[in-house]
Amino acid sequence: MQFTSEQHLDDGVFEREFTLGEIPGTLWTPGSAPAPLILIGHNGGLHKREPRLVARARHCATHGYAVAAIDHPGHGDRPRSATDEQARADLRRAMATGEPVDEIFESFVGPLVEKAVPEWRTTLDALLSLPETAGPVGYSGMTAIGIRLAVVEPRIKAAGFFAGGYVPRAQREEARQVTIPLLFLLQWDDEGNPRQRALDLFDSFGSKEKTLHANMGGHAGTPWFEVEDGDRFFSRHLK
Amino acid sequence: MQFTSEQHLDDGVFEREFTLGEIPGTLWTPGSAPAPLILIGHNGGLHKREPRLVARARHCATHGYAVAAIDHPGHGDRPRSATDEQARADLRRAMATGEPVDEIFESFVGPLVEKAVPEWRTTLDALLSLPETAGPVGYSGMTAIGIRLAVVEPRIKAAGFFAGGYVPRAQREEARQVTIPLLFLLQWDDEGNPRQRALDLFDSFGSKEKTLHANMGGHAGTPWFEVEDGDRFFSRHLK
Repeated sequence: MQFTSEQHLDDGVFEREFTLGEIPGTLWTPGSAPAPLILIGHNGGLHKREPRLVARARHCATHGYAVAAIDHPGHGDRPRSATDEQARADLRRAMATGEPVDEIFESFVGPLVEKAVPEWRTTLDALLSLPETAGPVGYSGMTAIGIRLAVVEPRIKAAGFFAGGYVPRAQREEARQVTIPLLFLLQWDDEGNPRQRALDLFDSFGSKEKTLHANMGGHAGTPWFEVEDGDRFFSRHLK
Repeated sequence: MQFTSEQHLDDGVFEREFTLGEIPGTLWTPGSAPAPLILIGHNGGLHKREPRLVARARHCATHGYAVAAIDHPGHGDRPRSATDEQARADLRRAMATGEPVDEIFESFVGPLVEKAVPEWRTTLDALLSLPETAGPVGYSGMTAIGIRLAVVEPRIKAAGFFAGGYVPRAQREEARQVTIPLLFLLQWDDEGNPRQRALDLFDSFGSKEKTLHANMGGHAGTPWFEVEDGDRFFSRHLK
């Protein structure tokens, strides 16, 4: 793990960019060490420097967590393959013309999960070797990657899933193998994420402690107080 | 309003029993005054001294709210009419034999709402005339009474509804007239409250800001952290 830049922010958070092989990432740490670690998984075309993601990460860091985000293959700073570009073009065309998008998402998100989860595990190894971080570990973000991580990675003890975006069939099946405490966020009128499918997914998780928070509005409308509720969820399980 | 007993509790809360005409109630106030007021509406056979209700009320009072509960007609310390007794007996018999209970609930809860809401408004007048209380006012508890109160009582600025128990047809219709911020609690496997009906009710509220919190387990299994989430909800809207 190579740190490529560092910055002391005015809220007391220490922000560092890193690379780990091909994986570019950012680590935010509070002044005090060692802190429990939260991995933020983002999706779609998003970038690890996307402003809302950064605001969320810094907020968590000021509340005593080390927080890491990486750019997944084909995202952010990373090169996009011809297949990625084709899938994105197919998706834009289908959404513009109102064609079904499930199979396009499946062909795009399914392989993303397969590639991103081993990268997260490699990143986790490296992050937990730093003196600034300590277990237990939480995950917060994209549902599809989070499900697979929660199933295969025993160091992850609690997860907050954002029920936006497409969850591949494989992860919908794996959901019943997830047994860690969950906070599942749903936007009630999320145009890209049919409500009933999200409710069915929530129902299928194997966790004994799982809480659904649903708020009004579309995909990008999650209210800020859910970030604060997320802090309290993680403080119950990671501290 | 006549105070009939008073007690300084070890958490700093001042607890007083009162009567207002036929209405018996309890008022919990924090040391500091004046405090925003939260009305706790309970249901079923419950009593204003039921331990979980009292724990919730005292918790809110230690967080800076004045909190009041009353026994509704036919509840707690109040006399039960022959009609009340008959409805309760019908309900027990129907639940034991697996008969449909909707019409029995309707005949029981419908009139309860009609009687309880004017009593709450009278109680609210009296409570707000005390130096220890100040607007704005929140409501927390039984959904059916809360819907009608939120529709007719402009002093109520935010409400937490517990989606347990039967909501009469009239209140399911009135739900779209509710426009104040809502926190709606749902127990995912509540045997007495079909999940889809609760989700439909949540959908129908007219409020722009409404949040659903769903947790695992049956009717009485709401986790304690929801009381703390309720505090934060009210602090956003009443303070």
